[in-house]
Amino acid sequence: MRTSSTSLLYLLYFIRLLKIDFPAVEPSTTLPLSNGHTNMLNVHLVPHTHDDVGWLKTVDQYYYGDRNDIQHAGVQYILDSVVDQLLKNPDRRFIYVETAFFYRWWKRQSPSMQQTVRQLVDEGRLEFVNGGWCMSDEATTHYSAVIDQMTMGLRFLNETFGACGRPRVAWHIDPFGHAREHASMFAQMGYDGFFFGRLDYQDRTHRMVQLEQELLWRASDSLPPPTADLFTGILPNGYNPPEGFCWDQSCDDPPIRDDPDLEDYNVNDVVSRFLGIAKAQVRRTNHIIMTMGSDFQYENANLWYKNLDKLILYVNALQANGSKVNVLYSTPSCYLQELHRANLTWALKTDDFFPYADSDHDFWTGYFTSRPALKRYERISNSNLQVTCNQLEVLAGPASRTGPFGEGEKKAMAVAQHHDAVSGTEKQHVANDYARRLANGWQRCQVLVSNSLAALSASSAKRIYCDNLNISVCPLTESSRKFAVTVYNPLARPVSWAVRLPVNGSNPDDPFPTMCLVQVVPVSAATRGVRRNRGFAVNELVFQVQAPPLGYSTYSVSLLQNGPPPASMKPRHPAAIQNEYLRVTFDPDTGLLSSLANLETKQSIKLTQNFYWYNASDGNNTESNQPSGAYIFRPNSSTPFIISQTAKTETVQTSVVQEVRQWFSPWVSQVVRLYAGSRALELEWTVGPLPIDDSLGKEVITRLDTSIQTAEVFYTDSNGREVLRRKKDFRPTWTLKQSEPIAGNYYPINSRAFIKDDADQLTVVTDRSQGGGSIHNGSLEIMLHRRLLYDDVRGVAEPLNETSHIFPDGLVVRGRLLLSLERPPVAADTHRLIAQEMVLQPLLTFTDGDLNPNTRLEVRGFSGLQAALPPAVHLLTLTQWDQDLVLLRLEHQFQSWESKVSSQPVTVSLQVRDETPVLKTFQDISPWEVTLRPMEIRTFLLRVVLR
Amino acid sequence: MRTSSTSLLYLLYFIRLLKIDFPAVEPSTTLPLSNGHTNMLNVHLVPHTHDDVGWLKTVDQYYYGDRNDIQHAGVQYILDSVVDQLLKNPDRRFIYVETAFFYRWWKRQSPSMQQTVRQLVDEGRLEFVNGGWCMSDEATTHYSAVIDQMTMGLRFLNETFGACGRPRVAWHIDPFGHAREHASMFAQMGYDGFFFGRLDYQDRTHRMVQLEQELLWRASDSLPPPTADLFTGILPNGYNPPEGFCWDQSCDDPPIRDDPDLEDYNVNDVVSRFLGIAKAQVRRTNHIIMTMGSDFQYENANLWYKNLDKLILYVNALQANGSKVNVLYSTPSCYLQELHRANLTWALKTDDFFPYADSDHDFWTGYFTSRPALKRYERISNSNLQVTCNQLEVLAGPASRTGPFGEGEKKAMAVAQHHDAVSGTEKQHVANDYARRLANGWQRCQVLVSNSLAALSASSAKRIYCDNLNISVCPLTESSRKFAVTVYNPLARPVSWAVRLPVNGSNPDDPFPTMCLVQVVPVSAATRGVRRNRGFAVNELVFQVQAPPLGYSTYSVSLLQNGPPPASMKPRHPAAIQNEYLRVTFDPDTGLLSSLANLETKQSIKLTQNFYWYNASDGNNTESNQPSGAYIFRPNSSTPFIISQTAKTETVQTSVVQEVRQWFSPWVSQVVRLYAGSRALELEWTVGPLPIDDSLGKEVITRLDTSIQTAEVFYTDSNGREVLRRKKDFRPTWTLKQSEPIAGNYYPINSRAFIKDDADQLTVVTDRSQGGGSIHNGSLEIMLHRRLLYDDVRGVAEPLNETSHIFPDGLVVRGRLLLSLERPPVAADTHRLIAQEMVLQPLLTFTDGDLNPNTRLEVRGFSGLQAALPPAVHLLTLTQWDQDLVLLRLEHQFQSWESKVSSQPVTVSLQVRDETPVLKTFQDISPWEVTLRPMEIRTFLLRVVLR
Repeated sequence: MRTSSTSLLYLLYFIRLLKIDFPAVEPSTTLPLSNGHTNMLNVHLVPHTHDDVGWLKTVDQYYYGDRNDIQHAGVQYILDSVVDQLLKNPDRRFIYVETAFFYRWWKRQSPSMQQTVRQLVDEGRLEFVNGGWCMSDEATTHYSAVIDQMTMGLRFLNETFGACGRPRVAWHIDPFGHAREHASMFAQMGYDGFFFGRLDYQDRTHRMVQLEQELLWRASDSLPPPTADLFTGILPNGYNPPEGFCWDQSCDDPPIRDDPDLEDYNVNDVVSRFLGIAKAQVRRTNHIIMTMGSDFQYENANLWYKNLDKLILYVNALQANGSKVNVLYSTPSCYLQELHRANLTWALKTDDFFPYADSDHDFWTGYFTSRPALKRYERISNSNLQVTCNQLEVLAGPASRTGPFGEGEKKAMAVAQHHDAVSGTEKQHVANDYARRLANGWQRCQVLVSNSLAALSASSAKRIYCDNLNISVCPLTESSRKFAVTVYNPLARPVSWAVRLPVNGSNPDDPFPTMCLVQVVPVSAATRGVRRNRGFAVNELVFQVQAPPLGYSTYSVSLLQNGPPPASMKPRHPAAIQNEYLRVTFDPDTGLLSSLANLETKQSIKLTQNFYWYNASDGNNTESNQPSGAYIFRPNSSTPFIISQTAKTETVQTSVVQEVRQWFSPWVSQVVRLYAGSRALELEWTVGPLPIDDSLGKEVITRLDTSIQTAEVFYTDSNGREVLRRKKDFRPTWTLKQSEPIAGNYYPINSRAFIKDDADQLTVVTDRSQGGGSIHNGSLEIMLHRRLLYDDVRGVAEPLNETSHIFPDGLVVRGRLLLSLERPPVAADTHRLIAQEMVLQPLLTFTDGDLNPNTRLEVRGFSGLQAALPPAVHLLTLTQWDQDLVLLRLEHQFQSWESKVSSQPVTVSLQVRDETPVLKTFQDISPWEVTLRPMEIRTFLLRVVLR
Repeated sequence: MRTSSTSLLYLLYFIRLLKIDFPAVEPSTTLPLSNGHTNMLNVHLVPHTHDDVGWLKTVDQYYYGDRNDIQHAGVQYILDSVVDQLLKNPDRRFIYVETAFFYRWWKRQSPSMQQTVRQLVDEGRLEFVNGGWCMSDEATTHYSAVIDQMTMGLRFLNETFGACGRPRVAWHIDPFGHAREHASMFAQMGYDGFFFGRLDYQDRTHRMVQLEQELLWRASDSLPPPTADLFTGILPNGYNPPEGFCWDQSCDDPPIRDDPDLEDYNVNDVVSRFLGIAKAQVRRTNHIIMTMGSDFQYENANLWYKNLDKLILYVNALQANGSKVNVLYSTPSCYLQELHRANLTWALKTDDFFPYADSDHDFWTGYFTSRPALKRYERISNSNLQVTCNQLEVLAGPASRTGPFGEGEKKAMAVAQHHDAVSGTEKQHVANDYARRLANGWQRCQVLVSNSLAALSASSAKRIYCDNLNISVCPLTESSRKFAVTVYNPLARPVSWAVRLPVNGSNPDDPFPTMCLVQVVPVSAATRGVRRNRGFAVNELVFQVQAPPLGYSTYSVSLLQNGPPPASMKPRHPAAIQNEYLRVTFDPDTGLLSSLANLETKQSIKLTQNFYWYNASDGNNTESNQPSGAYIFRPNSSTPFIISQTAKTETVQTSVVQEVRQWFSPWVSQVVRLYAGSRALELEWTVGPLPIDDSLGKEVITRLDTSIQTAEVFYTDSNGREVLRRKKDFRPTWTLKQSEPIAGNYYPINSRAFIKDDADQLTVVTDRSQGGGSIHNGSLEIMLHRRLLYDDVRGVAEPLNETSHIFPDGLVVRGRLLLSLERPPVAADTHRLIAQEMVLQPLLTFTDGDLNPNTRLEVRGFSGLQAALPPAVHLLTLTQWDQDLVLLRLEHQFQSWESKVSSQPVTVSLQVRDETPVLKTFQDISPWEVTLRPMEIRTFLLRVVLR
């Protein structure tokens, strides 16, 4: 394999070929040496700005400084000002973090300004840290989207500034809790260390006492150390300056008044306050850090630097009188380098930093679920915009790029990873902006898909897209009696899915190929209720489709005008539904689930499932005035209200699908669904509009109560990858004083959670990030939707009370949980694949009439792979890098301990065996064989030669 | 007379030797020509900042950006930032106004930065306008202090920047009404024009309709035109940018979003809004001005300039498509030059712009009186710090300067002229800061006075000062039985005063020289009530002193321990008091004044005087929610409440003084006083603490009701100089719709007001600036004190409710009104001199024991003048200019029409006739003879050679 020399750096970031060896890492020669004094307390002042890529304002409003009535913040001016001020004094330093903003600024600069900035970067006066497109959220992001956004930012820096622009430090000063998988990714990307600002208040106190605010985070239980080891430092004051030393235009602290001719000369006061604060910060070395900046600061950098210059001057002047404190402009990497030099052994940590509480009743566990619709839209956008479109661009080559597809779509996904984007903690208009950007991306992506499919299928038929199939809306299938549907599979293995299309006809005219199971079923009342004048189909055509690896199949459909009636609904409680793998029983009195059995393994558990709501605290009680809000989950009582003891039900049973439709209230319903051939029980929930006419905020959960003996333990994934063990009222590294029995036991569930005992493991795969916990033995609860009437006083200044023009009475949200019941030692063999299919869903396109009249009965298809990859290997990324290069990431998607079969190292060959147009031709690859160990990600740049 | 060539410029500013000939003035060659287009509408954008020299924060807090919690404002950063930004684009312009701030900044700059700024000034990119130390208030300032503060600012600019630093435009964008005397001074200082922002809302509307927002202001009725003619322009939007175009960091208007790749591209919207606003501003030429800035703006000038650059770019780009609008960076002087070129004749105005109302119930006439104690302290400081100290420094030469006296005192006076300083419209802590600066000045000034008197008297006896004689407190005279008092006379004519010293002994041991009238009188109960534990003297020694022109007399006092008792008080209503000139009668039933007679002229009027209070509006009524406040006077009713129908009285009648002491209430008392030999009846009022336990704000007036037939007309002075005619419910230039019958008829009284008919003129000379009006026929009312419970919503955000640590229950204020009754044609002969003595009071210093035991009975003295100047000539300024030069200003203090005798031109000789040490020796003066016409001020720089 020959990699492009210009892009070698990215191999350092994204693959493990280079060993990351933190304690012994050599300082870069381009890194400015700090001028610390060995016999003094060295105070590293780090001027910085924290520029949210959207929060109270949209990302572009922040860039321009628009809507300053909401929040004064204008990033264009920050960068203007910082560059100006750095030029005034060569000692000054600045770090910049968010490439989404830097990019916007850079492309508007003159060549001479660009040259000036390059010089500042080369001299280490302007240093990039973190360097991703944004500072991603850690609780609600999926690792694949995080890697993509980091790639976008780092690539820009590398191509613009070369080696000197390489960030050496990961810098997540604001995210509200820290995921182990993020640390693992940062380690594998080659960062020398990681700094953050927020951790549990008890944890911080404990670490202060133990001198463990610096630590070595071993961030994978599967990758061999030190692959995922990351030095981690906790900043002393969040990311803010010490109290009394904020000199930004947004602050009111007294400036240094050093003109003796004027009133209020205060140099002595300032210096003595500063020395007091510096000496109070006890760490293990004689180097300490102070973050001199905060949100959107340095818009007028002169204020900061003018006073910092004076502070340094006057504090260091005391050295002549014997002072042992030395203050210097610095950066996180300079500070880190001094810590390295100390040659100490740091405390080891193997768990993560969730949940985050900043006080005893203030657990930031609400945002794990906040804005569930946006969270789902982000997740499906990852599949459509990022993965599918990138793949099709590679597969179809230049022909795919005649449309408007480009960087824009990827940027929409990249900004959505921000810690106030997919997290759901932004203002409503900003959430709308993220969604709109994604929607724009979808439109452009669809042009690319159309181009690509036209090229691959040699057909110019107009492609039509139906983005509202989740509510059974598709104008084409509702009105046309002849159409074709093309199903693209972004996975590298063949997959079958059930496709559901709204139709007004009944059965198909021509029989589908025999491998397809086809049925027409009535659209459920719940769906009819939420469509709100969009679509009027009364039936759905349900059929099983298959698509080859990295390829598509096309199915033609012709409907009868007056065919046989759809499958009938039985309006009574069903006894059970089942397919070849699973059997589900229902309580005949309540209509609720009562058991789940795996027919293959002969295991069976009691399983009751119902919906409840926590009454969100309004802040009006004696222990604390903290309400539930976008960030914070604080139920008023630990006992949730049940929505209904019983469900009204209808049952539809066909050869393709068996459904029990349950109604719990006008605002909660569910379809319990088993498709033929599926190892997963699907629970399709529909929740909303949450009623607020009782003036009570509501946080709706579904709870699964089982016979599994969980001993207060459950498991959640980290960013969709490795799974961590969670124990009730327990933290691995300190003795927890639990003060919120529900919220304090909630963890982020990005893709799955499970409970298990020796015999049984019930895994729940989610379709988006959600919060959840296991409060009772055998129980697992997942929060689905939240509607709150109070702001939680963390800055967003809006209650999380989502409405839209379509849902003025409150958002209705629909989603799916997939349940699998397996023996614990092999459970991952099922849930890894189910979850993979949940993340990367097939993309459907439609054409009206016959796609090709001559082949109307054929299923036509295409595969981009010569052979399917084994189940353990995930084709994480396949994307055009530039004109000649294609970026390929392969991943082993099992942890080392979770499957006897699948957790083995696996070797795949990149060699092309014949001259198919598939994946083009990879030339000069050596070695051809790529071996992946559990949880390993390997990245390749492939030179593509068109034949 | 040979003037110093380096200081010639100041002759241009301050004397009429150079004719100011506005319409024909040639543009300076250093003035950048604007690049206006003759066939287009040219929009002059004037980037500017308005930097109050104290208001919500102190002047130094504003300079540093301290206390940004009160108001975000830091002038040091404004100047830093503007200079940076001017360097980025040579088209950019900026004007700077307040030299108090610029000076603070300049002296902290490096030589290279100073050179950079000089370059910007030379190129016209940074232009000074106005250029005084501050932008003085126009309603409550005295012309002498205004001239001094303007001199300080302009001198700094001249010495720092030479001719290119000379301001060509006077710029009073914020003061709340405009005095004719200010316009007259500006014209005589050589300004090419004057711009301001505030005028009565009816006046503005009228002028907009009449196209008279540009005008020629003929600002003197005595000086021959065009000496006091000043082109005056009214800015279109106060001094703010057009709505929607404020791009300062303090504003929220949308920035120009011109990156088509980002959301919210708005160039078309911005341009079209701008064109709409520009075309709506109809003026007489095709040049219009827009002030692009406001209070303390441009702290981050990049925001403004970046957007203005874009605005100019995009608006002018439309010219290619036929647009006839041309936008340019400009300055007021460039704009003015274009108006000159239009060669038009402008409307003539001869009155002034008082009072100012910004809406129908919002008359800014309260500040004429607000903070009466500060107003008095400023006025007496002018006498002590500015005039007396400056004179003594000249008279005693270098020996006077061994102490700390210097620029500081003059700066304290200069900043006190600011339009939120002596105006009384600042926050309380800022008022305290002004007073403290003045108090510091007094201390330093007293060192200089001690040095000077020591040198002039060849005695090193320790000089003691008693600053609280107004409340009969002086520790020395209260405790010592032998002391000497030296009385310095800052006037250029001999004057006699009555000196009152608190003593605990009784009559003097040794008789005073026969020309001194001496009495011991009991300290009044009112004084004892307000001393608040400072001083316990029960008696006052009262005696007449005389001091020579520009010189002093010393009186030795030795008190008897047990001498005869003091003059007795008679506790009943007196019938009358009188001296050789005046007779005053009292109503035997009420104890109030009943008549005043001039015994020389045989004229007599009925005169009743009493105290009343207006109930300040709390804003809670139907017409308007405007309360009375620091700026605004709005009585709740047009009828004031009488404080008492009758006065309790005591009478003291001696050969030196005759007093009727009147008590109206616990918080209002008065002494009606006639000194032997005086042509003025003194009313010493003591008002306060105003009670607020009834939750009613109070505005206390005294009202003189006479038999004079005033026909709704009265007269007030302008800044202590020329007198203007005021007619009730009338404005000379437009038809007034009167909506506030009291507040809308109030005018500033700086030094005097009078009412008259054919026979009688009653003139009231005040000891400070006050507001007043003539609401009824024959009546004159003067507002003395105000205590208010609501803010008046003009920014100060505090009710004007003055307390202090000595007066926690509210300030007590004491002052004097001097009444003269004369025949109208000669009344000025009296009131001009009385007022002159009120402004420039004698300075008393004390020495303990005998000053010189050998001359204990002698009155010793000194005069700095060879001969007294005639009454019409006022020695306005005598101050050391530099090592060699002395600045001398002579003034004719009569208007042309007011006295048959005194309004004649007068010639004085500057020639020194013999070799006295007086005024040193003026060499090479030619012509020796200086002729002054009415109201003329002439300025000389004299080279002093020490013999």
